[in-house]
Amino acid sequence: MTKTLVIGGYSDGDKADLSRTFDPLFLAGPEDLAGLDDAARADVTAVAYKGHKPFGAAQMDLLPNLGLIANYGVGYDAIDVDAADARQIKVTNTPDVLNDDVADIAVGMMLCQGREMMQASAWARSGNWAKNGEYRLNRKVTGSTVGILGLGRIGREIANRLAAFKMDIHYYARSEKDTPGWTYHSDPVKLAAAVDFLVVALVGGKDTEKFVSREVIAAMGPRGVLINISRGTTVDEAALLEALEAKKIAGAGLDVFLNEPDIDPRFYALENVVIQPHQGSGTVETRAAMAQLQRDNIAAFHAGEALLTAVN
Amino acid sequence: MTKTLVIGGYSDGDKADLSRTFDPLFLAGPEDLAGLDDAARADVTAVAYKGHKPFGAAQMDLLPNLGLIANYGVGYDAIDVDAADARQIKVTNTPDVLNDDVADIAVGMMLCQGREMMQASAWARSGNWAKNGEYRLNRKVTGSTVGILGLGRIGREIANRLAAFKMDIHYYARSEKDTPGWTYHSDPVKLAAAVDFLVVALVGGKDTEKFVSREVIAAMGPRGVLINISRGTTVDEAALLEALEAKKIAGAGLDVFLNEPDIDPRFYALENVVIQPHQGSGTVETRAAMAQLQRDNIAAFHAGEALLTAVN
Repeated sequence: MTKTLVIGGYSDGDKADLSRTFDPLFLAGPEDLAGLDDAARADVTAVAYKGHKPFGAAQMDLLPNLGLIANYGVGYDAIDVDAADARQIKVTNTPDVLNDDVADIAVGMMLCQGREMMQASAWARSGNWAKNGEYRLNRKVTGSTVGILGLGRIGREIANRLAAFKMDIHYYARSEKDTPGWTYHSDPVKLAAAVDFLVVALVGGKDTEKFVSREVIAAMGPRGVLINISRGTTVDEAALLEALEAKKIAGAGLDVFLNEPDIDPRFYALENVVIQPHQGSGTVETRAAMAQLQRDNIAAFHAGEALLTAVN
Repeated sequence: MTKTLVIGGYSDGDKADLSRTFDPLFLAGPEDLAGLDDAARADVTAVAYKGHKPFGAAQMDLLPNLGLIANYGVGYDAIDVDAADARQIKVTNTPDVLNDDVADIAVGMMLCQGREMMQASAWARSGNWAKNGEYRLNRKVTGSTVGILGLGRIGREIANRLAAFKMDIHYYARSEKDTPGWTYHSDPVKLAAAVDFLVVALVGGKDTEKFVSREVIAAMGPRGVLINISRGTTVDEAALLEALEAKKIAGAGLDVFLNEPDIDPRFYALENVVIQPHQGSGTVETRAAMAQLQRDNIAAFHAGEALLTAVN
């Protein structure tokens, strides 16, 4: 009897770990649900989900006895939580275990962007250093002014690191938070205007769609660098591409995009953008911790115990 | 009357700044000294020096009235200070103003190496992300154990940043220092064996030549990553290349090399090495501060005032 259905692109190691605990059924994506027969679908009480394809009312209604959707990842914007609520389905995610890695990628992109580390590496490796002399001077990162958009757990990890780089830290959040003297802005446009680096650490989903609007991007000015480790949806990407191409802002460091992995090819032409393939949490250590937390939530559900990291 | 001789590859902006203050004579390198006539050489009382070519007794003896060599850069290993002492020539450098930038490059190389950011960027930009899926998992950086070889001003700046990445900080120095609980090692081999990342922040020169010896490198082990922002001379580069090629250590992040900029081409074949073209201090802001400090030392010398940052 299949109680756990695993949906998404899991590694062989993750599949083995899931199989050891749950004897699950595997599907590549939610689009394969319709291919299961009624009995198999009726057996499913828990879904282990990984991916960014929508999992909403239509998918839930194919699983009449579903009680849990355990998401792999902290961002659960692919899952329609309102639809889950209406069906008394619980949703869990994997918060906290990935905060450090995502914050590391944010800081790494800031250093790479400001210090042009990828171009400098190419300069050395191509032999230009020997043939044509020193790489051009670039921009000091320590001591910059930074704005964190969304001072949740990941935003705070980023800010804590940047404090060690002697940065003047500003932030936007829905309300002022307890901080070590960081400057609160209730208006994201004013935040953008006040800082050199603007780091997007918002939750994804409909509420934050294009939160980094054309107006916010315009306010960054010619020294502004946008760093995004949240979701591609949080940024008005058309406005961002225009600003980058016209050099109305200095550059960007992006781990997330609209339509990943088929991102807008206009990004490839931009030398002032550090591109990462949504690898914020992509370490062996952290992905193992995320998979473990997902399994622990499913095991707790099957045992009738309290969920570890419930969303709803 | 030429009192100040400027030697080295200065930018046009730096040359203009020097000319505004000193009406100097410019030479491309110390090898051009012999081409000056006796009278011109006798006029020189101060040298503004930039570069890594040796400036020793032979060069000093061509300038019979020399009283100051003002070095551009904190590392003055190109200048023979003993020879200067013997001739009552003072030497100055440009410490502190570049600490932040050099520390930033050290941390940037650690993040790039551990998180494979340059390979991940290439994966996305080449279209592999869209065609072949996620970039491979890599290695968590936060929470690593790090060893700082040389806890001077730059080493401390690096350690302060890494503390914010929750690292367990170990260090080697000639004697134990006042630290916030960091672990002291009097033996660099034992330090190397105890840590994941080994960061070289030693002073250059003869005393530290191959301080990172074959034995130190062997002690790092297969998880070890060497970061060097000091001088190429501090590392046994032949042993390092062998260890990297044989994957006896995990990788390296190097801003400095022997024979810069004609570095050993074997480095180019190594994917596990982040290469930077000695750009630790290479920002517009910091190079301006270094140039200003060099000029201030020369101005103080000509005015008979105390030097700001004397080495001897």
